[in-house]
Amino acid sequence: MAGPKALLFDVFGTVVDWRSSVLTELQGFFGPRGVARDWEGFALDWRALYQPAMQAVRSGARDYVALDVLHRENLLVLLDRYGIAGLDEADIWHLTTVWHRLDSWPDSAAGLRRQRVVAALSNGNIALMVRLSRHGGLVWDAILGAEIARAYKPDPRVYLRAAEALGLDPADCMMVAAHNDDLRAARDVGMSTAFVLRAEEYGPGQATDLRPDAAWDVVAEDLTGLAEVLA
Amino acid sequence: MAGPKALLFDVFGTVVDWRSSVLTELQGFFGPRGVARDWEGFALDWRALYQPAMQAVRSGARDYVALDVLHRENLLVLLDRYGIAGLDEADIWHLTTVWHRLDSWPDSAAGLRRQRVVAALSNGNIALMVRLSRHGGLVWDAILGAEIARAYKPDPRVYLRAAEALGLDPADCMMVAAHNDDLRAARDVGMSTAFVLRAEEYGPGQATDLRPDAAWDVVAEDLTGLAEVLA
Repeated sequence: MAGPKALLFDVFGTVVDWRSSVLTELQGFFGPRGVARDWEGFALDWRALYQPAMQAVRSGARDYVALDVLHRENLLVLLDRYGIAGLDEADIWHLTTVWHRLDSWPDSAAGLRRQRVVAALSNGNIALMVRLSRHGGLVWDAILGAEIARAYKPDPRVYLRAAEALGLDPADCMMVAAHNDDLRAARDVGMSTAFVLRAEEYGPGQATDLRPDAAWDVVAEDLTGLAEVLA
Repeated sequence: MAGPKALLFDVFGTVVDWRSSVLTELQGFFGPRGVARDWEGFALDWRALYQPAMQAVRSGARDYVALDVLHRENLLVLLDRYGIAGLDEADIWHLTTVWHRLDSWPDSAAGLRRQRVVAALSNGNIALMVRLSRHGGLVWDAILGAEIARAYKPDPRVYLRAAEALGLDPADCMMVAAHNDDLRAARDVGMSTAFVLRAEEYGPGQATDLRPDAAWDVVAEDLTGLAEVLA
């Protein structure tokens, strides 16, 4: 296999550990306010609302809106579901932007720095990605993904728009993700693929994406491992 | 003045020295082929065709196309004007992408690294900016500008789309440019402004932008000077 000219990275789960970061922020926000709930469940529920919210955009039922908007709407659903009231708009925005402050997996910043052209190919909007990348010391050549395509993965337009923005054929791009479905969509438009195992993304009870389920071009244990394979 | 949350940089002329880079590449390409012309004039003419080409997009006479496309079209005009024939498609693309390999001014990479959130707000397309930034060691938080707005500066949509992509009000953004017109358009949408003097952008005969022509918020001699003012 000729080496890819650019690596396109899924971010949530693949580069950053959203679950423990959201959990820690929820505990840190509500703990001092004397509000006790199952914050791990809340974090997992928040993420679980992510796909159906994007599906409304994917299906055409709703025009593209940024992920920040969807995160905020889903937060309001969960605050109601968990019986939490009395937050003001500043609190709600602070919690919504937990997703701007996710910690990276320990190998991510160093793993990215060693690669060729690297771009974020996330469903997160640009503002979210900029803040998240500053937070984690992640250095990208470009932030591509949902906002420039005005569509959400796995819509093929998101992958194709990223390759176009880099002036590359899809075949010259490698999609890197901890999620088999993301890689499948990338492969369907002609990209090469790298599976990175994030066995704790959903915590100890994780049941999905514990192994590659197809013959992806590369399988790596983390981003430094990926960098070594591609070196 | 409260400090800006993000700095948006013009690139051609402000961050990179297009004139001497294009000149050097033209000499390096045509010299060994025995083709002698006024390459300095060719470089200046190429840049002179940039504004009218974008004007067709600005006026709505033409849909947005990437700057790479305009650079290529303008190159073909000049090859004809300078009586140069016989280049193949690979040569033409090599020359078109001279604009991907422009050298930075000596202060640029270090000046950028010291700043808060920094984004390229250029008429150059994303692929061009990615390669140019790799070439010069320029590290951005995001590449914004013409391609995500599908319009060319000084169209106000380009500035407004950049602020929106960063999740910021225009008033929280500072436009940095060596060109008074660019700053005027940024100020018109509510951004603060920094003029950086690039007195040799057009070579020793430069007649424009030798001084700030309005009361810009900051005037600096280069990007490290700007970083010091904003520190």
